[in-house]
Amino acid sequence: MQGKAIAISGRPERFPLVCAPLVAHDEAQLAAEVATVAAKAPDLLEWRVDFYEHIGDAAKVIDMAARLKRAAAGIPILFTRRSSREGGQPIPIGEAQVVNLYRAVCASGQLDLVDFEMSNEREHVAAVRAVSRAAGLPLVLSFHDFSATPAAEELMARFEQAQALGADVAKVAVMPRSTEDVLTLLAATERASRELRIPVVSMSMGALGAVTRLCGWTFGSAMTFAVGAASSAPGQMPIEDVRQGIEILRKSGSP
Amino acid sequence: MQGKAIAISGRPERFPLVCAPLVAHDEAQLAAEVATVAAKAPDLLEWRVDFYEHIGDAAKVIDMAARLKRAAAGIPILFTRRSSREGGQPIPIGEAQVVNLYRAVCASGQLDLVDFEMSNEREHVAAVRAVSRAAGLPLVLSFHDFSATPAAEELMARFEQAQALGADVAKVAVMPRSTEDVLTLLAATERASRELRIPVVSMSMGALGAVTRLCGWTFGSAMTFAVGAASSAPGQMPIEDVRQGIEILRKSGSP
Repeated sequence: MQGKAIAISGRPERFPLVCAPLVAHDEAQLAAEVATVAAKAPDLLEWRVDFYEHIGDAAKVIDMAARLKRAAAGIPILFTRRSSREGGQPIPIGEAQVVNLYRAVCASGQLDLVDFEMSNEREHVAAVRAVSRAAGLPLVLSFHDFSATPAAEELMARFEQAQALGADVAKVAVMPRSTEDVLTLLAATERASRELRIPVVSMSMGALGAVTRLCGWTFGSAMTFAVGAASSAPGQMPIEDVRQGIEILRKSGSP
Repeated sequence: MQGKAIAISGRPERFPLVCAPLVAHDEAQLAAEVATVAAKAPDLLEWRVDFYEHIGDAAKVIDMAARLKRAAAGIPILFTRRSSREGGQPIPIGEAQVVNLYRAVCASGQLDLVDFEMSNEREHVAAVRAVSRAAGLPLVLSFHDFSATPAAEELMARFEQAQALGADVAKVAVMPRSTEDVLTLLAATERASRELRIPVVSMSMGALGAVTRLCGWTFGSAMTFAVGAASSAPGQMPIEDVRQGIEILRKSGSP
């Protein structure tokens, strides 16, 4: 197995991790969503807090995180504010407040990992790195392009940038316009998984890229996103299908 | 869907075709094998005649072909003498006799497609092309490397050579020594599927390459080999698993 696994405190290592997003807007819907999704036993839940109506109220976010943690019954939770520039929802708070939210959430002990875009302002990335490190939470630094797939060198530069900024995990998600673009993403993933010291995660989005959600791990990607109740990006498949596909490949001796 | 489908006279086009090999040594074992494998409903059966003990007796080969055809109950059969240079069994007849065997088999009306290595002597390739064309049987011209994966340009040259030699289908099967090699094969397949006029088939063999047997079609490969009763090359997965994996990808909207 060439890819490096993502280490989550106190959990056995699994490669790849199957991560299911939570995208509901309010407490009641989130409670229902986490119950449905946790029952499908993903390795990880991603709370996309940019969908949450009370994102502007750190106390409510932490209360909600605590509810999610109880309902997740041991499944670790990744906390993600996806910026609207990179495919997330518009939110009513500014970037300084977002960083404060990450600080509060990291300190709360209710979450297990955090994701932040490496395109955010340098001091904000540094602040999120500092608060997550202080709390002992792994940090995913991510890059998304919902319109195209950059050239191989640029993808590689994004993986390397995440590592240079102190990430524990480097994530790159891009949109293919051709089958060739899907291979460009896989080739960059393969190279990054050999050359970086940290685990890498990648996906080619949409229908064209769906194959990477099933097979990307054989090229070094340490995590794949799959649908428990609702998808958070185009091309995600149901958890059951992703698990079955991984199992089929694993039986064949795939690395 | 970028890949070109393999047309077999009188059959609806399917992409990709799932092909299961028959590798038994004698009549009784072949009869048992074809019954087991046909029950799993592959799209195509490949009779690997180099495993057959009576390969030197054209009349027996044609009798056996007729038995296989009846037992296959409508599943088309690909006739293949894999040369020992390219991973096949040693056989007791010379190349001129092999060409005569192909001539007799093509004329018999018992088989649906034939496979011949493009590395065979030029006049033999031309002869097999002529007899298969006369009989209206599609010809797969193939290249195998069981020890390594040639560079991308060389793989592309093999696909192009098959087309230049008059193939109806160009097949390239190679062994990876690294995950990078698997991507090299997929990239050559993707390019060949766009640039050639004929369908292409490819696989990266062994455990490292197993992913190509499930996903190669999303990069343009028109056929994948899967195990009905026994495998004919390293890395082949059970038919049921391959079908399930293809179905999972298809549901996701894969091309």
